[in-house]
Amino acid sequence: MSRYALEIEYDGSEFNGWQSQVAGRTVQDEIERAIEILTGESVRIVASGRTDSGVHALGQVAHFDLGKEFELKRLVKGLNGITGRDITVKNAYAVPRDFSARFSAVAREYLYLIYNDTSPSPFFHKRALWVGTELDVDYLNGVASSLRGTRDFASFCKKTSCKDGTVRTIEGVTFSRYDSLIYCIIRGNAFLHNMIRIIMGTLLEMHGERLPREHLENIIEARDRDYAGKTADPSGLYLKKIFYNPDISGYVSAF
Amino acid sequence: MSRYALEIEYDGSEFNGWQSQVAGRTVQDEIERAIEILTGESVRIVASGRTDSGVHALGQVAHFDLGKEFELKRLVKGLNGITGRDITVKNAYAVPRDFSARFSAVAREYLYLIYNDTSPSPFFHKRALWVGTELDVDYLNGVASSLRGTRDFASFCKKTSCKDGTVRTIEGVTFSRYDSLIYCIIRGNAFLHNMIRIIMGTLLEMHGERLPREHLENIIEARDRDYAGKTADPSGLYLKKIFYNPDISGYVSAF
Repeated sequence: MSRYALEIEYDGSEFNGWQSQVAGRTVQDEIERAIEILTGESVRIVASGRTDSGVHALGQVAHFDLGKEFELKRLVKGLNGITGRDITVKNAYAVPRDFSARFSAVAREYLYLIYNDTSPSPFFHKRALWVGTELDVDYLNGVASSLRGTRDFASFCKKTSCKDGTVRTIEGVTFSRYDSLIYCIIRGNAFLHNMIRIIMGTLLEMHGERLPREHLENIIEARDRDYAGKTADPSGLYLKKIFYNPDISGYVSAF
Repeated sequence: MSRYALEIEYDGSEFNGWQSQVAGRTVQDEIERAIEILTGESVRIVASGRTDSGVHALGQVAHFDLGKEFELKRLVKGLNGITGRDITVKNAYAVPRDFSARFSAVAREYLYLIYNDTSPSPFFHKRALWVGTELDVDYLNGVASSLRGTRDFASFCKKTSCKDGTVRTIEGVTFSRYDSLIYCIIRGNAFLHNMIRIIMGTLLEMHGERLPREHLENIIEARDRDYAGKTADPSGLYLKKIFYNPDISGYVSAF
């Protein structure tokens, strides 16, 4: 038995999220089907984490096992020939049998993309959140610095999904502007369900009223979803990079 | 009578080009229809130039006349509410009656976008040309410098469309790389039909064999379409900016 990890990019607009489900097109189903067509083996793939409907990925990682060995370049090119144009397998790695895309991950980095101009852009429809009033990146960075550190983020978790502990570590949150685009890069050890989207919705609501960072401190302290802002649109969210220790770039890969 | 100019961005992937035609969805038809719904007046709009099927625009300019005056902000917001998500009217200007989006233009700037990585990106499908082998931007810049100046570009014109003289001035051609993206910015007084796509196809073919810039000189001198390379895919081409003298930013506008 050989274990493989794939690095995957996808445009989430036309998917009902990552996870296989009874109805609707999912990224997991599409890749599992492609692996079966290519290798003849029916497999189950395990991702670093699920992404919700409409959420994108630049560097999702998923692992699976094959009974027979399969050449890595052929795996990448073969899968890209079978899946839709909205999925690209960027690389494939031969990983040890105890590697888990989910449990071996030590940190995760997301991008939340905002298109900030008077009118929306056709090129960022379903690919960024459009905000029509000018955002102040310095204000957002100032407030967001309160989020850094190991905290109980219960206020930023979808109510029905947070039974298993809500303490997480956020290593950094940084907003930067390039013309009409605002990039928010957020990195942490792991994230609760909807955590980044609720953080983003809260920061944008606070921006509207220019609330001080103490307001965000109070929301965190409350440990109650009702205190935080709305869940921001999935279209701006990109799973950017998964970090492993040792890094997967150390394994044999297709490229 | 009042004359208005619109600055328009569109994703050309789902259009049969700019120009109104009997069958198929066109940008011109969609905007004329939206103006009629909004203002009640049936108009004809004139663009700086037509874009072919699949070609995009970041800053197309088009003018039209209305019998009654119409408030500029309402014009922008109203049109954006009616047209599809793949068209955005970015701004509207109240221009003098002798302004022509086409004949008043003194220069045009295009972007040709190349996604240069081992695998294509789902986010640039139909929005960039994918080249899977690594391109040398310094080589491309070196060769492309031969294109600058006032020349007879007959070799770079679609055969059936070049009856009215083929001398044009190219002010600059510059390739730059940002990660996997290569931007070619090309600016000139005007361009022949398919001129930029044929230039791009020719440069990419020359790159494959690392031909010297004298080869490009010979193609220009030949004044014959058969000497140049293939017409590159429309998906990478963006009409970026139209220049007027005086600049349209000097007129009263919505934003």
